[in-house]
Amino acid sequence: MINSVPDPVMTITEMGALARSASAMLATLPTAARADGLRRAAQALRAAAPAIIAANAEDMAAATEAGLSPAMLDRLRLDEARVAAMAAGVAGVADLPDPVGQVIDRTSAPSGITLTRVRIPIGVIGIIYESRPNVTADAAALCVMSGNAVILRGGSEASRSNRAIHAAFVEGLAAAGLPADAAQLVESTDRALVGAMLTAAGLIDMIVPRGGKSLVARVQADARVPVLAHLDGINHVYVDASADPAMAVSIVINAKMRRTGVCGAMETLLIDRAYPEAADLIASLRATGCEVRGDQAIRAIDPSVPLASDADWDTEYLDAIASIAVVDGVDGAMAHIAAHGSHHTDAIVAGDAAVAERFLAGVDSAIVLWNASTQYADGGEFGLGAEIGIATGRLHARGPVALEGLTTYKWVGRGTGQVRG
Amino acid sequence: MINSVPDPVMTITEMGALARSASAMLATLPTAARADGLRRAAQALRAAAPAIIAANAEDMAAATEAGLSPAMLDRLRLDEARVAAMAAGVAGVADLPDPVGQVIDRTSAPSGITLTRVRIPIGVIGIIYESRPNVTADAAALCVMSGNAVILRGGSEASRSNRAIHAAFVEGLAAAGLPADAAQLVESTDRALVGAMLTAAGLIDMIVPRGGKSLVARVQADARVPVLAHLDGINHVYVDASADPAMAVSIVINAKMRRTGVCGAMETLLIDRAYPEAADLIASLRATGCEVRGDQAIRAIDPSVPLASDADWDTEYLDAIASIAVVDGVDGAMAHIAAHGSHHTDAIVAGDAAVAERFLAGVDSAIVLWNASTQYADGGEFGLGAEIGIATGRLHARGPVALEGLTTYKWVGRGTGQVRG
Repeated sequence: MINSVPDPVMTITEMGALARSASAMLATLPTAARADGLRRAAQALRAAAPAIIAANAEDMAAATEAGLSPAMLDRLRLDEARVAAMAAGVAGVADLPDPVGQVIDRTSAPSGITLTRVRIPIGVIGIIYESRPNVTADAAALCVMSGNAVILRGGSEASRSNRAIHAAFVEGLAAAGLPADAAQLVESTDRALVGAMLTAAGLIDMIVPRGGKSLVARVQADARVPVLAHLDGINHVYVDASADPAMAVSIVINAKMRRTGVCGAMETLLIDRAYPEAADLIASLRATGCEVRGDQAIRAIDPSVPLASDADWDTEYLDAIASIAVVDGVDGAMAHIAAHGSHHTDAIVAGDAAVAERFLAGVDSAIVLWNASTQYADGGEFGLGAEIGIATGRLHARGPVALEGLTTYKWVGRGTGQVRG
Repeated sequence: MINSVPDPVMTITEMGALARSASAMLATLPTAARADGLRRAAQALRAAAPAIIAANAEDMAAATEAGLSPAMLDRLRLDEARVAAMAAGVAGVADLPDPVGQVIDRTSAPSGITLTRVRIPIGVIGIIYESRPNVTADAAALCVMSGNAVILRGGSEASRSNRAIHAAFVEGLAAAGLPADAAQLVESTDRALVGAMLTAAGLIDMIVPRGGKSLVARVQADARVPVLAHLDGINHVYVDASADPAMAVSIVINAKMRRTGVCGAMETLLIDRAYPEAADLIASLRATGCEVRGDQAIRAIDPSVPLASDADWDTEYLDAIASIAVVDGVDGAMAHIAAHGSHHTDAIVAGDAAVAERFLAGVDSAIVLWNASTQYADGGEFGLGAEIGIATGRLHARGPVALEGLTTYKWVGRGTGQVRG
């Protein structure tokens, strides 16, 4: 072929084969070897900070010229503190409990064969992300620690930063004797490479998209490889008649306003028709600067609340806006969540334990909380140390996914010559 | 529309919505209620045996007229003993340990929130199967016991039998107060219904194909819903130099010849170049009536063995045929299996524990066995009681999949008013 542009499918096929070999090698290495690789990668990132920051400055200049929004520029920006935090994050992953080799369970089969289910790495993970260059190091660290090889495809606006981070990361791996192919970066910014990753069944075992809704939606729509992701976080807080009013105010304000742009933020407040302090709750939330939109029953309590449209109940604002509805007790709350939720995180504030347990059992979300803010939907807060993402699908892993979610298992049987009758 | 043929997508959408409601109801029922439903379904199957056998006779007559092979006719055929076995199977599932509600782990998050991961049903399972009508009852029993609703699509040649079995099954569910929509049968034999199931993302959470390779291949190629399946069982037995010769003969013959048509049957025998009893092993296998095909090194041991073609190493014979290769120790065996295996079941016969452990760790298959026949690849033999299928994919569940593989989990957090800082 005269054409010098590499074929996207061939590129991913070659990277996938190298990744498979690297993952087979990683899978048999002891914990200490993988941890050492990450600690050296962290050192290399610290040492390369000037080069990373210089590369990032070029990305920032190009992005500024291209007119990226201030929010996107902030996501892209690296400075000494951010590089140091990235390196510390990589080193921190090395200290997490290693799931690889864990025995999930052990049984003696009727035949006398001793059977264990043993955690093993999944194999090859694809990460498709946008403007945050720290994902290059964060995601690679989680994959390598769990014995997986990773193929990284970052946003074109961060390509120089990603290359500099990736170079340092694999230098650290190599210094520890780990295969550099364990973390490969797709260097071309050709969007066809993303398509090739999404359809690389058998080469890439799982894709994790990290970024905005349009990226996740495209990945979910086009992927033939299993995807671990959440599209929306349309999270609810239900305040039951039995709730302590002070706790309700505190949880609702925190769930909505602590950080409005995170996927664990509350978007809809559901208030029990029998809750006596609804007016105060609404006023308290508004007093923090939150815009509210209510149904007719809310407007009966406070006529100054604008009427919510039908679309509001299905909207993830990711902003200082909340929709508020009155519901008939916990069953009404569960029906509303079943109709409008996104299976991410939903909470109940209640004093009545039986009501709370009914909610916890009946709401079909990855995370259900009683008397706690939805903003706790985070791998770090769950004691997982770090997370590769939050999943709202139903198979494999749900909620915050960290090292364990990057593993699968095999059945290992040890016999003494058994043959089946 | 004038057209009276129901639209396949609309049909599956309606069935999916009914199934979702039924699964939500099943999920909150106690173990005893689901078990009671299955016991009554078993009773109803026994009571309906004459109707089921009569319906099956019509299927058999049509299939005979259509010229189905004797093997397919045998799979289709039901008699009193087979209906009784089916009913006993359904009742047996009621006695299995219930995974729903099991606490996988419990942690105290840094915030003081008590976090548990609790097993819950997946939701809606689609089963696509061929001529064996017993799958109607077997698969439905596993799904309902694990709190899932099921949409069943059997082969057209078994449609009358499936309708009779399904009618009895849901009569039993209803007698126990369970929702009849928990087990729905796609009655139309229009193949477009299969396509509609395979693309019913959000309506059907997981598809399990049960049948021959062409069915599984079509499902895997076309599905946008996650699939739990295995396509091939290209299983290996590796006989190490350290193997006990009598054990090697016994395991190899059992792995190949006990039942040649099952997915756990050995297809390729790998013999360590340093194994002293290769000629006897080959002769013993041939003496059972097994056809063998060998590589050049095998022909050097026994020139009467025909030369295997390249395709033999990638062939699942499902017949009394075995390919045989000489390999250089356990590393040679692992390299051969990595190149030609199907990640199903592979075994080593060895006296040297270090060599065996190297094989168990290094072979990337759902089931790896030491000194035991590959024919143990079966949920019943693994103490699981029954199985919905054997999976060779890497995510969610691997190897024999039973009730636990039909569940997922949610994170349940119980706090005392925590808000995030």
